[in-house]
Amino acid sequence: MKSNEDTGFGSNPDNYGGRFINRDGTYNVKKEGLPFFQRFSLYHTMLNMPTWKFYGTLFAFYLTVNFIFACIYFFIGPSEFQGILAVGTRGTFKEMFFFSTETFTTVGYGRVNPLGDSANSVAAIESMLGFLSFAIATGILYGRFSRPKAFLLFSRQALVSPYHGGKALMFRFAAYKDTHTLTNMEIKVNAAMVVADNGKTVFKFYDLELERSHVESLPMNWTVVHPLNADSPIFEYTAEDMKKSDLEIYVSVRAFDDVYSNIVQQRTSYTYSEILFDRKFIQMYRESNDGKTTIVELDKLHEHRASKV
Amino acid sequence: MKSNEDTGFGSNPDNYGGRFINRDGTYNVKKEGLPFFQRFSLYHTMLNMPTWKFYGTLFAFYLTVNFIFACIYFFIGPSEFQGILAVGTRGTFKEMFFFSTETFTTVGYGRVNPLGDSANSVAAIESMLGFLSFAIATGILYGRFSRPKAFLLFSRQALVSPYHGGKALMFRFAAYKDTHTLTNMEIKVNAAMVVADNGKTVFKFYDLELERSHVESLPMNWTVVHPLNADSPIFEYTAEDMKKSDLEIYVSVRAFDDVYSNIVQQRTSYTYSEILFDRKFIQMYRESNDGKTTIVELDKLHEHRASKV
Amino acid sequence: MKSNEDTGFGSNPDNYGGRFINRDGTYNVKKEGLPFFQRFSLYHTMLNMPTWKFYGTLFAFYLTVNFIFACIYFFIGPSEFQGILAVGTRGTFKEMFFFSTETFTTVGYGRVNPLGDSANSVAAIESMLGFLSFAIATGILYGRFSRPKAFLLFSRQALVSPYHGGKALMFRFAAYKDTHTLTNMEIKVNAAMVVADNGKTVFKFYDLELERSHVESLPMNWTVVHPLNADSPIFEYTAEDMKKSDLEIYVSVRAFDDVYSNIVQQRTSYTYSEILFDRKFIQMYRESNDGKTTIVELDKLHEHRASKV
Amino acid sequence: MKSNEDTGFGSNPDNYGGRFINRDGTYNVKKEGLPFFQRFSLYHTMLNMPTWKFYGTLFAFYLTVNFIFACIYFFIGPSEFQGILAVGTRGTFKEMFFFSTETFTTVGYGRVNPLGDSANSVAAIESMLGFLSFAIATGILYGRFSRPKAFLLFSRQALVSPYHGGKALMFRFAAYKDTHTLTNMEIKVNAAMVVADNGKTVFKFYDLELERSHVESLPMNWTVVHPLNADSPIFEYTAEDMKKSDLEIYVSVRAFDDVYSNIVQQRTSYTYSEILFDRKFIQMYRESNDGKTTIVELDKLHEHRASKV
Repeated sequence: MKSNEDTGFGSNPDNYGGRFINRDGTYNVKKEGLPFFQRFSLYHTMLNMPTWKFYGTLFAFYLTVNFIFACIYFFIGPSEFQGILAVGTRGTFKEMFFFSTETFTTVGYGRVNPLGDSANSVAAIESMLGFLSFAIATGILYGRFSRPKAFLLFSRQALVSPYHGGKALMFRFAAYKDTHTLTNMEIKVNAAMVVADNGKTVFKFYDLELERSHVESLPMNWTVVHPLNADSPIFEYTAEDMKKSDLEIYVSVRAFDDVYSNIVQQRTSYTYSEILFDRKFIQMYRESNDGKTTIVELDKLHEHRASKV
Repeated sequence: MKSNEDTGFGSNPDNYGGRFINRDGTYNVKKEGLPFFQRFSLYHTMLNMPTWKFYGTLFAFYLTVNFIFACIYFFIGPSEFQGILAVGTRGTFKEMFFFSTETFTTVGYGRVNPLGDSANSVAAIESMLGFLSFAIATGILYGRFSRPKAFLLFSRQALVSPYHGGKALMFRFAAYKDTHTLTNMEIKVNAAMVVADNGKTVFKFYDLELERSHVESLPMNWTVVHPLNADSPIFEYTAEDMKKSDLEIYVSVRAFDDVYSNIVQQRTSYTYSEILFDRKFIQMYRESNDGKTTIVELDKLHEHRASKV
Repeated sequence: MKSNEDTGFGSNPDNYGGRFINRDGTYNVKKEGLPFFQRFSLYHTMLNMPTWKFYGTLFAFYLTVNFIFACIYFFIGPSEFQGILAVGTRGTFKEMFFFSTETFTTVGYGRVNPLGDSANSVAAIESMLGFLSFAIATGILYGRFSRPKAFLLFSRQALVSPYHGGKALMFRFAAYKDTHTLTNMEIKVNAAMVVADNGKTVFKFYDLELERSHVESLPMNWTVVHPLNADSPIFEYTAEDMKKSDLEIYVSVRAFDDVYSNIVQQRTSYTYSEILFDRKFIQMYRESNDGKTTIVELDKLHEHRASKV
Repeated sequence: MKSNEDTGFGSNPDNYGGRFINRDGTYNVKKEGLPFFQRFSLYHTMLNMPTWKFYGTLFAFYLTVNFIFACIYFFIGPSEFQGILAVGTRGTFKEMFFFSTETFTTVGYGRVNPLGDSANSVAAIESMLGFLSFAIATGILYGRFSRPKAFLLFSRQALVSPYHGGKALMFRFAAYKDTHTLTNMEIKVNAAMVVADNGKTVFKFYDLELERSHVESLPMNWTVVHPLNADSPIFEYTAEDMKKSDLEIYVSVRAFDDVYSNIVQQRTSYTYSEILFDRKFIQMYRESNDGKTTIVELDKLHEHRASKV
């Protein structure tokens, strides 16, 4: 029962709220006391956004910038431009707006073009801004594409299953991208639980020993097995015991990714309510019909069946 | 005969089809059970495409996008444009198509230019799309160029050759790019074979011990040698034995690449049918004529000659 | 008292000026004897600039380049251009300047456009320069965004605090970015001090032993503790002793960053004047009001209170 | 005298020409037997070019592409274009050339613009090519900027100097860029020499033991010291002995670079003719005049003075 003092979490349960690690692997921690802009990172925020939100943000930015410049050009007035054909306030504004889009994207058809000093200066600044925005968009898009990620899918539950005559805690995961190859994979599983220590209630952290904590590559799925023997801090725990000790199993996977030639990491955690008893995972790969390849069935990752010891 | 339990492959031969690792180093595994778009990665697919296919895809994308926008502009009608000189349906469509290419690439000559609201709006969107496509193309092109790769060429066959009075399994490889420098290179060779275990037929995996598993750098070629002595799981195996046990030798090379300042990996495998007996590799480097440098002859990599013990 | 000979610093105090490492982690060393341009790196300088200075530099570059090209076009003369509407020297120069911005940013409205050979040639070169400048700006912007950084905030002072009945030297730090996750963190603390050695006054370097030098992740803050016991080179040192020995504590932190999938490092140092006696850090995290998460209070990082042993 | 079998070089001197490693760290090896385009890597070649050559290549490429497209447009004929003002063959060709530069850089002033189908199609292709070239240029420029490099300067000679009553082989180096910080530096020094082995003349490789092979950081210079004692393969060697044994000392440095957050490597070598006897390096750092910083004098890196034991 090796207690682990180096987790980076403290032992005082009074100051902690909720779980330590969320299912998606982020820490359940909020930061305060520094201005938002010091804590905020534009690049990371744009990197972590879902795709639809990311492109939506870009489009909204494009509309906003052009709206602002359209207002400026409108304020400068149509007399500083050549080639405006529309008439009326509304028409002039629209010409200004589309002149702005032409300038920002550097298309520059040129029917409408700036004559006066103010119009010319603002257009010179806008085209430079377009230039830079493009550079920034390129960088962020490349960052999104090329960001090393593990792309692992974890089973929704951890199970207490029969194992070599006794029991073991098991969960499994697989790389779900077709083209990814993870090698040299290591896994570390810790348990965080509230225990009595010299009369005080404190959080303790334990390394959970695994049947196997390293594989050379992950072509298929991997079932991680923690034998529930006398060395385990949760030996003979019932679901009730787990709930009482506020048990959280957290998992950290580290591997080398061939595609990025980089180390990738992924974390997740299971709290007591995500642990099921007396169930067993069903097999999730089979030989192909032509016998020439092996098929991993990702949809079976979360499937298990009753299996009493 | 160290059996290796950490390969990431299972031991049940009934569920496996074909070889484990393909010659090009990919795993002979297919994934199923998740929607295509979750398993698919556009970036990786574009990264791994052959050059001609990659540029073909870009060109096809360019044609398609412009065709779609040409249709939209055509649907909006020529009355919303200024400067169209062509007449007739066909001519108008062509003008629309080339207006679209001008807009997408942000060339914007401006002879034909949008007047109406719909035409202007669609053009504003198309130029922004062109902008973004460019950014994406830049990212993918950079990704293709800068992707760390080992660029190793492996001999087509592995040989059983005379070695110190006995025999050894040998294969060799070399870095074939002129400018690459691989250092700190490690190699790992495993054998996968079907064996009888407690009456059942199971896959077993063995680490093959090597005469040398590390070199400091790879300026030349490297002949990898596995001595076929009593410690080898395939000691005294004939070609027939190898076939019966469905033998597959798989190889993983890992090195540090000076050009990318990154770790690179490459895998390959030899099945029983790619192993030849009683042959020996011929030497593949020589002194240059002026005596000032050494020449590696890559065309001799696959060459061997008969050599009975 | 393990003396450390591998710091990379020499032992002769006569040749050293000031502290070894600045608070921001840079070395307090200047290089001479090579031309500026060999020692200078444009990319790194642009990478390390504060944001406002970076964008200011880009804008100044844009103005300068366009001013130079405006002069060249003006020298070539308006007769080589078509479409100039302005009259007078001043007006012509302005037209040239804005023609230059149009060309450099590749907007190219086209009202003013080059007719003569010289004007055409210079415009062809300028547009290519714009092209390349854009490429360079994209690269540098991406470099700025994606540069792996630790984003750690260190307490302004190190404290000598009560610890297990004795005393310990303590300082603390936290990652202040919302989205960052540092794992596998290691810290190394050294002391540089002037000591008498065989009658000579020399600099000696010591590794300071820490209560904990590794944490698995840094979701919160970390208080680094060096127990001031008999094994410490600064055991029983008073503030006066520290000053006399010109004591400098320098700190190097190394961790794996999830966002960049890269190793990041940060250094800092505390000289004797930044070490306070008989003070203790106050706690800097608390449970959120809803009890569902934990809040790190970064503004309390530097706060401590009197605490006499 | 630890002989080193893992250098990656063979032992047969008949097949080797010249030194193993060039002064600039490249291997003195040429590859043959594969088509040039398989061995060639455009990206690496562009990455490794000197700056002036790189920009020269870009400019030559720009001229060539535009010349080719000018020829195509000229062949299509001026009747497919609108707005051509020049007359005569020469004038028309120039208009075509500058129309091409406008299109390739996507400036598109639009005075000259394509009317006919062929002109339009070729212009559509050229603008797309310009688009892609830009993307490629961006990638290569970024690659050049951001490529991790050690930027170390090695002393031109290695010296045999007095050392602790005996002698030692010494050379030194320093990081010459102002902004670079190398940490965790390791050095490995090998000797390659021709020796008699069982009557045959073979190359043997030895690890040279160093007084110190690791420093935590490299703020200053580092003098690498190999004590010439009984454990050294070149103990009591004279200049004549070194020449006879065709001695080559090769050096490999590996460090972590803060700027790139990456591992960088640099190699060099000293042959017998670059080793001087009975000389000693002079000190190369001093306190600044204001006593607040330390100055590294890079111009003294190669300086030494006579010093007979």
